[in-house]
Amino acid sequence: MKHRNLRLENKKNSNLKLISSTIKNLSKKGINELTMQDVSQGAGLSQGIVNFHFKSKELLLIETLKFISNEYLHSFQKSILKSGNDPRKKLISIIENDFSKKICTREKIAVWFTFFSEIKYKPAYHQICKERDLYYQSITEDIFLELIKKEKIQLSQKNISRGFQALIMGLWLDQLEDPDTFNRIQSKKICFEFIKSNFPNQFKRIL
Amino acid sequence: MKHRNLRLENKKNSNLKLISSTIKNLSKKGINELTMQDVSQGAGLSQGIVNFHFKSKELLLIETLKFISNEYLHSFQKSILKSGNDPRKKLISIIENDFSKKICTREKIAVWFTFFSEIKYKPAYHQICKERDLYYQSITEDIFLELIKKEKIQLSQKNISRGFQALIMGLWLDQLEDPDTFNRIQSKKICFEFIKSNFPNQFKRIL
Repeated sequence: MKHRNLRLENKKNSNLKLISSTIKNLSKKGINELTMQDVSQGAGLSQGIVNFHFKSKELLLIETLKFISNEYLHSFQKSILKSGNDPRKKLISIIENDFSKKICTREKIAVWFTFFSEIKYKPAYHQICKERDLYYQSITEDIFLELIKKEKIQLSQKNISRGFQALIMGLWLDQLEDPDTFNRIQSKKICFEFIKSNFPNQFKRIL
Repeated sequence: MKHRNLRLENKKNSNLKLISSTIKNLSKKGINELTMQDVSQGAGLSQGIVNFHFKSKELLLIETLKFISNEYLHSFQKSILKSGNDPRKKLISIIENDFSKKICTREKIAVWFTFFSEIKYKPAYHQICKERDLYYQSITEDIFLELIKKEKIQLSQKNISRGFQALIMGLWLDQLEDPDTFNRIQSKKICFEFIKSNFPNQFKRIL
């Protein structure tokens, strides 16, 4: 039994090393030029082990996308949970999380956009990205609905949550396109201004 | 002289056919699996002609990005010119243009995001995308500055124009990720709500 646990532990460690090497190499070379050899070298493991764990480059890529998506969702959920019941605090913590040093690194954003750009041809990528989006939208719609009621205004929670997510995705793209002028604080400020302009009574003192 | 003009004309026609076939094939297969043969077949030309005109796949891709970027900028400038001097009309026409049937097709958006995802490794793509962005930002910053003065509010024209462009890029990505629920009218409405919430006095009757 002990041996089995050790084997599982080793497998998990190797998987993690390989996925983290895939992220690094993807963000350096792009999906096109990434090879299984780059990944194994980056992880300090033999190519046999990569093939043993992932069978093909495609499977390795899918597992990598699943990994960054799970990491994202885990961090997203955690930031909401610690905000308690206040919809304002929840929204602020979503913004803080989306531009945190763990989530919004140039390396990870490059990986996300690599997968986004392949969505049209790869149903497996599409599925994983869509699941993340649907979850994000359902949570933010609920938050915006509460804010809309409290502010006593006429707004569609669907539209505003879609706009909110689009704004964040566009600012992520900014980091990729314009790394010299991009900064986390400005991006967060732009998001805070977005919510303040829609809910001035509830976010008076945010900026 | 006549012969020379005819030759130039033919060259231009072939180039256009090849670029338009590249756009179609890129949006179907992605950058990874696109071959010069796909492009020549799609254009109804021999592979020799593709090689003669573009030398390599990389040069063909750069010319394709230049083409969609120029097409975009031309359409952007035209929409602003016809709006006269009213900053409100200019902004509305930018939104109308960004979600027009000519500019915001799933095919072209797929091509844009293919190039965005390669920006980090390809300085030539970065250069072309950055030029488009800088132009867009300089025009929208001027428009927002006028609106800010008229509305008599404290806002940074840099932040709001960056947010505006990010919102539009994020909505473009939506079309790629979620084509079933994406629609142009909703996207435009989200953008109109964005400007209305910032400039309520000047955009009272927009929605």
